Parts: sequence; structure tokens; C-alpha cells
Amino acid sequence: MTTLQQFLQDRLRQVPIEAIKLDKPVPLADLHTPALVLDLDIFEANLQKMQAHLSSHGMGLRGHTKMHKSPLIARRQLALGALGVCAATVSEAEVMLAGGINNILITSPVVSAEKIDRVIELARHSSEIRIVVDHIQGAALFNQAAATAAVQLKVLVDLDPGMGRTGIACGEPALALGQYIVNDCPHLEFAGLQMYIGNCMHIKGYADRRARYEALLAPGIATRALFEAKGIAVSVFSGGGTGTFDMEPGIGALTELQAGSYAFMDIEYREIGGPDSELFEAFEPSLFVLVTAISQPRTQLITVDAGFKAFASDSVAPQFRDLEGVVYHWGGDEHGIVRLNNPSSTVRLGDKLAMLTPHCDPTVNLYDYYFPYRNGMVEEIWPVSARGKSQ
Amino acid sequence: MTTLQQFLQDRLRQVPIEAIKLDKPVPLADLHTPALVLDLDIFEANLQKMQAHLSSHGMGLRGHTKMHKSPLIARRQLALGALGVCAATVSEAEVMLAGGINNILITSPVVSAEKIDRVIELARHSSEIRIVVDHIQGAALFNQAAATAAVQLKVLVDLDPGMGRTGIACGEPALALGQYIVNDCPHLEFAGLQMYIGNCMHIKGYADRRARYEALLAPGIATRALFEAKGIAVSVFSGGGTGTFDMEPGIGALTELQAGSYAFMDIEYREIGGPDSELFEAFEPSLFVLVTAISQPRTQLITVDAGFKAFASDSVAPQFRDLEGVVYHWGGDEHGIVRLNNPSSTVRLGDKLAMLTPHCDPTVNLYDYYFPYRNGMVEEIWPVSARGKSQ
Repeated sequence: MTTLQQFLQDRLRQVPIEAIKLDKPVPLADLHTPALVLDLDIFEANLQKMQAHLSSHGMGLRGHTKMHKSPLIARRQLALGALGVCAATVSEAEVMLAGGINNILITSPVVSAEKIDRVIELARHSSEIRIVVDHIQGAALFNQAAATAAVQLKVLVDLDPGMGRTGIACGEPALALGQYIVNDCPHLEFAGLQMYIGNCMHIKGYADRRARYEALLAPGIATRALFEAKGIAVSVFSGGGTGTFDMEPGIGALTELQAGSYAFMDIEYREIGGPDSELFEAFEPSLFVLVTAISQPRTQLITVDAGFKAFASDSVAPQFRDLEGVVYHWGGDEHGIVRLNNPSSTVRLGDKLAMLTPHCDPTVNLYDYYFPYRNGMVEEIWPVSARGKSQ
Repeated sequence: MTTLQQFLQDRLRQVPIEAIKLDKPVPLADLHTPALVLDLDIFEANLQKMQAHLSSHGMGLRGHTKMHKSPLIARRQLALGALGVCAATVSEAEVMLAGGINNILITSPVVSAEKIDRVIELARHSSEIRIVVDHIQGAALFNQAAATAAVQLKVLVDLDPGMGRTGIACGEPALALGQYIVNDCPHLEFAGLQMYIGNCMHIKGYADRRARYEALLAPGIATRALFEAKGIAVSVFSGGGTGTFDMEPGIGALTELQAGSYAFMDIEYREIGGPDSELFEAFEPSLFVLVTAISQPRTQLITVDAGFKAFASDSVAPQFRDLEGVVYHWGGDEHGIVRLNNPSSTVRLGDKLAMLTPHCDPTVNLYDYYFPYRNGMVEEIWPVSARGKSQ
């Protein structure tokens, strides 16, 4: 017998956070598939490259934990110099705080009473919790809850980059919300602007992507100027992502970058193209799904044990890392059917093969654990601590 | 410090199985969204209808647990008369056995040493574990492992219905495999045939679906006759699914039905059509995702807190249960953007709404818990025990 609240608290307490050390290194080939495996050398190089790039341009990194869902990985980002993290949901923020991360921006608006209570509870434990609001109703509810709990809460105004997803319209509507926060919400502290331009991260071709990004960002820059003209200092302008990471310094608008995918990369991001190349190669894929060939009903086909429950299926099909001349087709929840057109090596029943993920965020969300490796050996297991924490 | 094997055993021991009772009933509106909710009246009617239908025709039900991932639900199916369950993976079978289910058919071939060991471990605990093989190599490996462990293992020959996914070709190749099992594998017991015709479950239009199904099943029926002509009795012929449940008795081929989705239903299955109707309505949707309206950037749009991490995205888009004149568009991992064309009722920020799932199996696999309800009240919480058990 329990209450709903107690149930949720128990669940949070049971979330695994720390790495599980193996008593001796395990070769990748011994893993039970499908398994989420992480090439540590590439992963660490990606983390370092992004931080070095941003630091050299005086920008902050606020890595998005919706992607990796792991306080262990967030701690590595912070250790390299990131100023904080993003969380897409209250549940993710709870897991990050439980994992020792204090500076957390929840990037999606929260409007329901039961979740506002949870945000207030987070704010009791960390003064560095930040939320976004995109509506006066949300600001009013949070101000009231913060007053009742006698806490101060840092609030960013979320701007709609024309996606129609979340955010208030740039210009006067945003200013009115900002003024409401400053003038009418004594328990909220105006902490800046957020503008996440998700609708251009995956535009193929660097020049097109950059042109579109600058066009969409312009009203946000104008809104910042409007705020400042009205005497509201905008010390933080948060947004951007992996697809625009190297455009930011040239534009000079954002103070912090909300990138996530750069750490792992995926097929979707690779295919958007770089400034001088057809593939976006500033960061290399470090995350793979290890699969096993389990059946061969015909000579030209082989079936692997990974389908809709092993890979996110919202975008492109998975691809093999080390095998060319083959095409993966979705074969249902647990299977992929691989057409062996002109395979660059022979695939036999029982073989284990690494595959690139189509879209890393929802793929990670299908797994409980990462198996990080170096030189083909796994020494510890990392929980995907916030897996399924969509609430 | 742990070994990989110990880690896997610990994980299995930690799987939640039993229902968690709430100290007092909670209204659906208090749930934290996105939440997987189950209408118990409809769900129970679906379970009863399928069992009554099959029983009246002398067929068995072997419900597929890849769909619901819950020993609690499997127990209900068994209590109503099901003869056993299916599992798609060894991990699912382990969870079912841990949940007290003994009669389990693992419907996908297993070929790797580490998983064969786990199947043998299951067989030590239950003589009613069944596997499928579709290749002599698989049979040989299992026979050897069973000999080493001094267990007998029941084995079905998996037939390829022309999907090229798993299964051996019908006719002589299947017979040769059957004869190999009977003659050369003293630790394997030939236990029948499996033929899952997944490639016709979702054909739209009853007549077309039936014609295609009968055509694809015919080589399986001929293979059964071939086995029996050669003196190998085929007491079990396992296959079929929700999309063909009412075709089976007329054909008279299968002895047991591997249906899963009938218990919950989803948009994909509803749209295949019934014998006398445009929608397949033999079973009613009982499973929904409860979402919250969290943002309204424009008058004609409203954003809900459910995207690729709340709904499987391998097929159609989600739909609202009680709201017409609106269209859901995927809005990324955590969002759906709803176009309010001509809404049948007003949607306000903070409103909670029930949505039908596009494809129930991989949607269920995104959640840790079901919230079953009756008359709008939740009295207990059911774990999705085998969630993520894709290995």
C-alpha cells in the first residue's frame, strides 16, 4: 500500500546512478545483444572538442541530458568545463539532481500542479534550478507555488522560433511576459531567454542551414534588444544545438549552447553535412548498437536481433559501422532484415556487428545500460539512469 | 565488482512483477503524464472474447508477451484458459518464468552461446520451455548444450512464410531439419511447427487479408502433411495473430494462436478493417497514453507532452480518443503539436487527454508502469516487467 507520491519517490530512489565495475574486462563479443555500446576514445574526443570550441569563443555549454540520460556523462561534461545541464522533463531533472548535478535548466514548459510541486521540491534542494515559461498562466502558477514554499526560482522566457511547438512569440508578447515576471512575480527571478531552433538543426547543407538559422534567430536577437531597451537585462541567452554549434560564435547571440547529440552522434546528424564536406564530421559517432545475426532464411538475406525495440524508428534506418554493400530493413519489433547485396565481408550466424543509431536520443531511451569500451574491452557498465523518465 | 553474468542475474532479480496497491484510488487526472493507462473493463472484455472464440473452436491461445511484457497480464490470460505464452526474447522468457509462468515458447531463433546457456537454465526450471530452430546449426548447438546440462528441450521447427525474416523454407528443407532433430538430437524433443505470418497481419480489408493469409499458410500445411507422411507427428502448429484470429478455425491448420495485440489494440490494427466494417472492431482499444497540453504558441495549435519517447513512431501518428477535428503531428522526442482544425471540445493548458497508441508493442516498451483504471480511478499500478528486455 502506497500513495502515488510515495510511489514516485520510491522509484526515484531506486534509480541506478553509479557505474558498475566488472571484476575483469569483458570483450564486446561476449555481450548479450542488442546492447548499447560506447567507444570511449571517440566519446571523450567529442566531449573535449565541443568544450574547447565553446571555451575559445567565450560561450558556455549546457549539455542536454535528454540525449544521454546519464549523470555520469553529465559529470564528465561538467568536469571539462560545462556550466550546467538541460533536462527536457521534470523526471530527468530529478535524476540529474540525484546524481549530484545542481545547475539544471528544464527546457520545456511545466503547467500542471503535480509537476510544479516537483519543480519546487527540486528548487528547495538547489538554487541553480531553472525553468522556462511561455505563458503568463505558467508564470503565475510558479510564482504562487514558489511563494507558498518560500523559495526563489530562476525563470527563462521561452521564445518560439516559428516551430509552433513551445515558446511565446518574439517581440511584444515576450516582453509582456518578461515584464510580468519582473514586476508581478516576486518569487521568480528573470534569468534570461531561451530559443531552441529545433526546426533547423537537421537542414542538409551547411550554407542552407546557416542561412535558415540566422533568419530564425533574428527575432530572438531583436527580442533581447527590446528587453534591454526596456531595462530588463538579459544575461543569459540559451539555445542552439549540435547542428549549429559552429555557427554560434560568428553570430554572437547565444551565451550558452544546448547541445546533446555531439557526444554520441547519429546517422541523422551525420547526414546534414559540414562546412566543407557532405557528412557532418566535426564529431564522430561513438555510440553503437551491437546486434547478432540470428537467422538466414535465404542466401541474400540475414536477420539481426534488432528492430523497433532496439533502434528509434522516427527517422532513417540503422546502418552497419564496419560492413558495406548491405541494406538494413526494419523487420518488426525484434528484427532487422539485412539485404546482402555485395557485402564487404562475410556475415555468419552468430556474428556480432556494430550499427550506427538513426537518432541517438530516443534510441538511448530504449536501453537500461551503456557498455562503454576501449580497445574492444568493457570494464564497467553505466546506467541510462533517466531512461523512460518522460514525465 | 561483479561479473557480467552476475550483473544479468541481479537485474533479473530486481525486476518488479507484482501489482503495487495504492492506499486509496487515484483519479486519472492526478497522474503525471505521459502515462500508460489501461481501461480494465475493455481489457477484460477483450481477453474474454478471444479465449471464448478460440475455446469454442477447439484452438489454444498462446498469448504473445512481447506485446504486454507483464506476467500479471499473462496470468490473467492463463486463468481464462490460455495454454501458455510466447516470448520473443530470452530476457522476456526469464521475466515470465520469474513471474510464475512455466509454459513459454521463445518464438525467435537463438544461436549465440551466451543466450543458449540462459535458455538451458530456463529449461532446468521448467520442462515446458519451448524454443524454435530454423537451421541445423541451431539445433546442433542446443542439442549439445542440453546434453551437457542433462536436460530435454522441446523444439519447434520455425517455417518461413515468405517474409525472409526467420524460419526455414517449407517442404524438404524443413523436413530435413525435423528429421535431424528426431534422428540426431537425443536431447531435443520435436514439439511441432511454428509459422508466424507477420507479413499479412496488417493487410487492409478482410477479404484481401484472408486470401493472402491462406496463400501464405498453404506451404505450411503441406509441410505438416510431409512431416506426417514421413512418420513425424505434428501435434502442435503454432502461429497466427490478432489480424487473422477469426480466420483460423475456418482453415483448421493451427492448433494454437500467437495473438498479442487483441488485449490492448492500437490504431494500426483498427485500420485493417473487419469482415463487415471499415474498422477492425472485434476488440476495442483498452490502452491509452494520457498526455497533458503544455503550450499554445498559436491559437490554432496546442502542444502536448508526448512525442517519440511516449509513442512508438514506426507506423502511424497517435490519435486522440475523445477529441475530433484535430490532427497530431510529431513534435520531437518529448512533444506532439496538435492542429486544432475544428476541435469537438475546447482544449486548455493543463488539460489531460487520452490518446490511442499507433503500435502498442513498442509503445508499451517505452514505459515502466501501467495505470489500470475502472470508472476513471486507479487502484493499483502494474509493472511493465519485461520492458527493455530485448536481449
